Amino acid sequence: MTTNAISLNLATTRQVWGFKDAVEGCLRAGITAISPWRDQVAAIGLEEAARIVGANDLRVTGLCRGGMFPAETAQGRQRQIEDNRRAIDEAAALRADCLVLVVGGLPGASKDLAGARGMVSEGIAAMLPHAKACGIKLAIEPLHPMYAADRACVNTLDQALDICEMLGPEVGVAIDVYHVWWDPRLAQAIARAGRLKRIFAHHICDWLVPTTDMLLDRGMMGDGVIDLPCIRKMIEDAGFFGPQEVEIFSRENWWKRDGDEVLAVIKERVATVC
Amino acid sequence: MTTNAISLNLATTRQVWGFKDAVEGCLRAGITAISPWRDQVAAIGLEEAARIVGANDLRVTGLCRGGMFPAETAQGRQRQIEDNRRAIDEAAALRADCLVLVVGGLPGASKDLAGARGMVSEGIAAMLPHAKACGIKLAIEPLHPMYAADRACVNTLDQALDICEMLGPEVGVAIDVYHVWWDPRLAQAIARAGRLKRIFAHHICDWLVPTTDMLLDRGMMGDGVIDLPCIRKMIEDAGFFGPQEVEIFSRENWWKRDGDEVLAVIKERVATVC
Repeated sequence: MTTNAISLNLATTRQVWGFKDAVEGCLRAGITAISPWRDQVAAIGLEEAARIVGANDLRVTGLCRGGMFPAETAQGRQRQIEDNRRAIDEAAALRADCLVLVVGGLPGASKDLAGARGMVSEGIAAMLPHAKACGIKLAIEPLHPMYAADRACVNTLDQALDICEMLGPEVGVAIDVYHVWWDPRLAQAIARAGRLKRIFAHHICDWLVPTTDMLLDRGMMGDGVIDLPCIRKMIEDAGFFGPQEVEIFSRENWWKRDGDEVLAVIKERVATVC
Repeated sequence: MTTNAISLNLATTRQVWGFKDAVEGCLRAGITAISPWRDQVAAIGLEEAARIVGANDLRVTGLCRGGMFPAETAQGRQRQIEDNRRAIDEAAALRADCLVLVVGGLPGASKDLAGARGMVSEGIAAMLPHAKACGIKLAIEPLHPMYAADRACVNTLDQALDICEMLGPEVGVAIDVYHVWWDPRLAQAIARAGRLKRIFAHHICDWLVPTTDMLLDRGMMGDGVIDLPCIRKMIEDAGFFGPQEVEIFSRENWWKRDGDEVLAVIKERVATVC
C-alpha cells in the first residue's frame, strides 16, 4: 500500500508563493495534495481557495491551524473557541481531512502548566460539537517540548492521545516527526494511536545538527538526524497511509529558494530517504 | 526539613571564577556546597582541589561530568568508559555525592537513537563496578529533548529510571528542572524516583521566554516560566532534601556579571521564589 504521495504544507514555500502560486507549483510538480495556513487562505479569500481546490481536485490533508486555547481570562478563552469554530468552517469549505490544532502554551505570566493543559482539553471539548456538525476531524499536533511555554503545552504523543481518548473518535493526532522523533516511547505511542484509529496526518522534515533557531531552522528530509523510514514504518504499521506532508520552516535556507526548486528537492528526497 | 541550602554549580560563574576563586566567593556568601566541572578541577589540579574541599569542609553535591558513551566504534566506546573510570576517581577524591552523567547523543552520522540508547546502558554497566568499588553513586541527568541528537539521548526522567532499575541502587538521577519541567509525567516520575530512592541531585535555574540560544541562555530562578516551588515540593515529597544546585549557562547575561553579584542574586532568589 506504500506510495510516495506528498502533500505540500504551504508554510514550506510561504516566502515565495501565495496560495494560488503554490497550487500551480504543486500541479507542475505532479503534487495533488496541499495543507494551507489560514492566513494564506484569507489572503486569496476562502471562496476562491475552495474553488481552486475543487477545480483541481486537490486533497487538503489539513488546515493549519486552530488551537491556542489557554488565555488568562474566561473571555479570552471564549474568543479563542469562537475563532476555532471559524477555523472549522474554513476547513469544511476546503474539504480538509482535518483541522490541525497547535494548542497554545502558558497564558500571560502563568507558570501553571497543568492549568494550561486543562484549558486545552476544555477548549477542544467546547469546539467539538461544531466540528462534528461540520464533519471535520480535529488533529492535535503535539509540539516539541522546547515549545511548551510559548506554543503548545501538549508535548508528547501519549499526552495528546490521553486527550483524544477523553473526547472521542473525532479528535486525533497529527504526527510531525520534528516534534516527536526523540521520544523514547514513540513506537508504543504510534502503535497506540493506530489501535485508536486516531492518526489523522503525518508531517515530515528533519532535525538539523546544529539547529541555529528554535523555530525557523528545520531541515529538508535527509539533511538531519531523524530516521524517517523508521518512523514512517511505525505509522504505516499503525494503519495510516496518507500522503507525507512536508512542512519546513527554514528562514535562512529553503525559504530563500525558488519554489519549483524546493519542490524538486522534496520529490527527490521523499523518493530516496523517506 | 526544608532549608534553603544552596550548592553552586561552578558552571554558573565559569567565565569569571576558577575553582579557587569560586570557593572563596561561595564562602564569602555563606554557601558551603559546590559542584565543579572536571576541567575546572584539572586546571587547579585534583589534589589541590581536594585539599580545598577538605580544608573548608565543603559538600560536593556532584562532579560534572561523566557520560558521552555512544561512539561509532567499539574502541571509541571503550575510550569513553576509561575516561568515565577516571571521572569516578576524581569524584572519589573530592568526596562528591555523585558523578553526574550526561550520556551523549547520536554517534557520528548515525540516526539510530535506539542504538545510542543501548550504548548508554552498556557504558554505565561497564563503569559501574569501579563506581561501586570507589563508593561513588552515578547520577544520570536526563537532558531536554532538544539535546537528543548531540548531547544526551536520555530525555525523560522515566527513561532514566528504567536504566536505573536495570542497573541497581548505585545508579540514580540528577533532576534538573530545566530539562524536565515540561514533562506531562513529571509528578509521577519524581514520585517513582523517590520510591526507588534514586534522586541524587536537584539542579535549578529557569526557562526564559523567549530562549535565544539552545545551550547558553538559561535564566536565573524567577526570571522564567518554571514553577520551581511546585517541582521542589515534588522532590521533597519524594524524600530528597539535598541542597538545590544552581546551574546557569548564560553567555549574554549572568556569565558577564561579577561573581559576588551573581551569588547575591542566587541567594535572594532561592529565599524568595524557589
